[in-house]
Amino acid sequence: MNYPFAPQTKNYESSAVRDILKVTQQGHVISFAGGLPAEDIFPIEQVQIAYEKVFASGKSSLQYGLTEGFIPLREAVQAKMEKRGIFSHPDNILLTTGSQQVIDLFSRIMLAPGDVVLTEDPTYLAALQVFRSYGANVVAVKSDDQGMITEDLKEKIEKYQPKFVYTIPTFANPDGKVWSQERRQELFNLCSEKNVLILEDDPYGDIQFHQDEVYQPVAALDTDKRIVLYTSTFSKSVVPALRTGWVTGPAEVIKLMTQAKQMNDLHSSSLDQQALYYLLRDFNLDSHIALIRSVYYERMKLMKEYFDKVGSGLFTCREPKGGMFMWVEGNEELNTTALLGEAVKKGVAFVPGAPFYVNEPKHNTFRVNYSHSTPEKIKLGMERLVDVLTSVPVATKTI
Amino acid sequence: MNYPFAPQTKNYESSAVRDILKVTQQGHVISFAGGLPAEDIFPIEQVQIAYEKVFASGKSSLQYGLTEGFIPLREAVQAKMEKRGIFSHPDNILLTTGSQQVIDLFSRIMLAPGDVVLTEDPTYLAALQVFRSYGANVVAVKSDDQGMITEDLKEKIEKYQPKFVYTIPTFANPDGKVWSQERRQELFNLCSEKNVLILEDDPYGDIQFHQDEVYQPVAALDTDKRIVLYTSTFSKSVVPALRTGWVTGPAEVIKLMTQAKQMNDLHSSSLDQQALYYLLRDFNLDSHIALIRSVYYERMKLMKEYFDKVGSGLFTCREPKGGMFMWVEGNEELNTTALLGEAVKKGVAFVPGAPFYVNEPKHNTFRVNYSHSTPEKIKLGMERLVDVLTSVPVATKTI
Repeated sequence: MNYPFAPQTKNYESSAVRDILKVTQQGHVISFAGGLPAEDIFPIEQVQIAYEKVFASGKSSLQYGLTEGFIPLREAVQAKMEKRGIFSHPDNILLTTGSQQVIDLFSRIMLAPGDVVLTEDPTYLAALQVFRSYGANVVAVKSDDQGMITEDLKEKIEKYQPKFVYTIPTFANPDGKVWSQERRQELFNLCSEKNVLILEDDPYGDIQFHQDEVYQPVAALDTDKRIVLYTSTFSKSVVPALRTGWVTGPAEVIKLMTQAKQMNDLHSSSLDQQALYYLLRDFNLDSHIALIRSVYYERMKLMKEYFDKVGSGLFTCREPKGGMFMWVEGNEELNTTALLGEAVKKGVAFVPGAPFYVNEPKHNTFRVNYSHSTPEKIKLGMERLVDVLTSVPVATKTI
Repeated sequence: MNYPFAPQTKNYESSAVRDILKVTQQGHVISFAGGLPAEDIFPIEQVQIAYEKVFASGKSSLQYGLTEGFIPLREAVQAKMEKRGIFSHPDNILLTTGSQQVIDLFSRIMLAPGDVVLTEDPTYLAALQVFRSYGANVVAVKSDDQGMITEDLKEKIEKYQPKFVYTIPTFANPDGKVWSQERRQELFNLCSEKNVLILEDDPYGDIQFHQDEVYQPVAALDTDKRIVLYTSTFSKSVVPALRTGWVTGPAEVIKLMTQAKQMNDLHSSSLDQQALYYLLRDFNLDSHIALIRSVYYERMKLMKEYFDKVGSGLFTCREPKGGMFMWVEGNEELNTTALLGEAVKKGVAFVPGAPFYVNEPKHNTFRVNYSHSTPEKIKLGMERLVDVLTSVPVATKTI
């Protein structure tokens, strides 16, 4: 039968990352492809204790909950954000199924076919897929190591009148970039002046390697809660299975997103939200995050050593200051999508950079994840990867 | 600031049920308004044991999962559906955040502004809200006690070329209706012939009071899995907080819904899905469902007694054969929306019937829920409600 699907489904793309993950679930492949946190340091005992507290609180913990989410957890989220300089109110926080749902709900209430979204390039590919699924045109703003270039942003805001700007200003996926304070301020000033909304995606902000540096969320500049939607998640700082993210921002926008969420799924798992509340209340999450930072830093350094060794003459990567990803660039003739086949044959996987690009993909780039694999696996996987990388004729290019 | 929301947000409506629930959360009001299952019989110990098994299975239980959902739970869902005559395959089952998410994802891949959806009248109001949020026109098919009237359905399929027919054929929300076997077959035959999809919403099918009767899901007729999407949930048979629903149907449709879900939230809570798997494996869910049935039957009978007493000369309601709701109709001049204010003042709440209607609302109808309140609360609440009902001048009308 020829199903009469809605026209916008033509914009659906299967996720390259997801397809690759499927391939690499063969046991012998060491995968640096996904975006998975380190399982070996999951605080499973603490999570279990938190659930026991939920059940001890009685049967009403198993009833339907509010669309907005469990109130005490929203209060805890507020307190957490205040440490980063974002002042909100529990009534103005919506709990979601991961921050992915924030990207989707916000797009749903903002985007109609033909609308424009401005993004970095490369950027989070699942966000690109969402924007396009609503028929939006994604336009990339020119960027350098400091963030979006303000002049180009200004020009594109004036030319396209975008519905919003999407950015991951701290430890970006895929390229690990951190915006400078100056560019954050310029982004905020410009959007504020032009009345353009900003969706600030901050899933990795907690995973900061150098405690002497300060990365102020753009949302912290928006003291009137007028133009910045700020989203983050517990998937990276606690565990992904709880699927709990949140968003705060202008009250009118949050209210409409709440209505959209009510239609979407009534509410997210309230058991998970209650467990997270007890976890945040009774468990030293800050010291757990400190553990995550030190473990990820060590793994990143280990992985980087291999690239640096090969890189002297072949590949270059910038050392990330946090987050979960390293971005690698080879010479211009290299095609990492083609290289992936070779790599998987040798038992290692990465994500080719191309699908992360908005416009012309740089086929000579790829992303590796250092958080998920143990040091032993990183060593073995990197030996394999070095083997693959040095077997192709390439030249260095610095990014 | 004047936010540039997408045009389709103009179709968003705040849920009347939800607004009422907020009002009735004042402690003194006995609410028959919501659609909540009975908390007092939640199998909390068994749910807790199931979670302990998840944690005992190791840290990988806390990692990201598949968009489609936890495979062993999909296998269990398949086995559960086979008892109702629906033969599917785990690859063709998508686990969701409640069946609400099924209604939303299916609408998302099917509906563009101006498309038509055919429904019963009255029907589940949150489904109406979803269809309209995608810009669809909802057209009601004439119905009687047996289900949609086939002649009218045929006429409207030919006239409107609808994207799909939405129906709750067994213990409908709000009016508790059960379709006859003949009408189920006619619906299926007609849609099959005309290539029209059917979304069969079956959240209450398990809560069947009379075990000698058989209600065959429409999906059981669709042996080729060509036109029927079947959705159900564990919210009513286990507990709502786990937020786990599912859908099965044509492979091509399920695949596209899976892509939509990936963009929507990557995946639902995998902890909840794993716990449900252990619960279904080790707990006698059938005997728990038998308990639910007997408890709800007793509560329904108790509530009905009060209406019957008043009804002799004033109100009428049909005895439901299952589900969670009773539908009451008074004389034509009655306005139950106006009456609600009086009722809440006297400490009892119901849902006025009007928002459940597609076209002309019958303002003399209302819905009461009998599952959530204990017998003591039902007695107290019904005394209050009878007081309100008998204080207005009304006349009987049989539905």
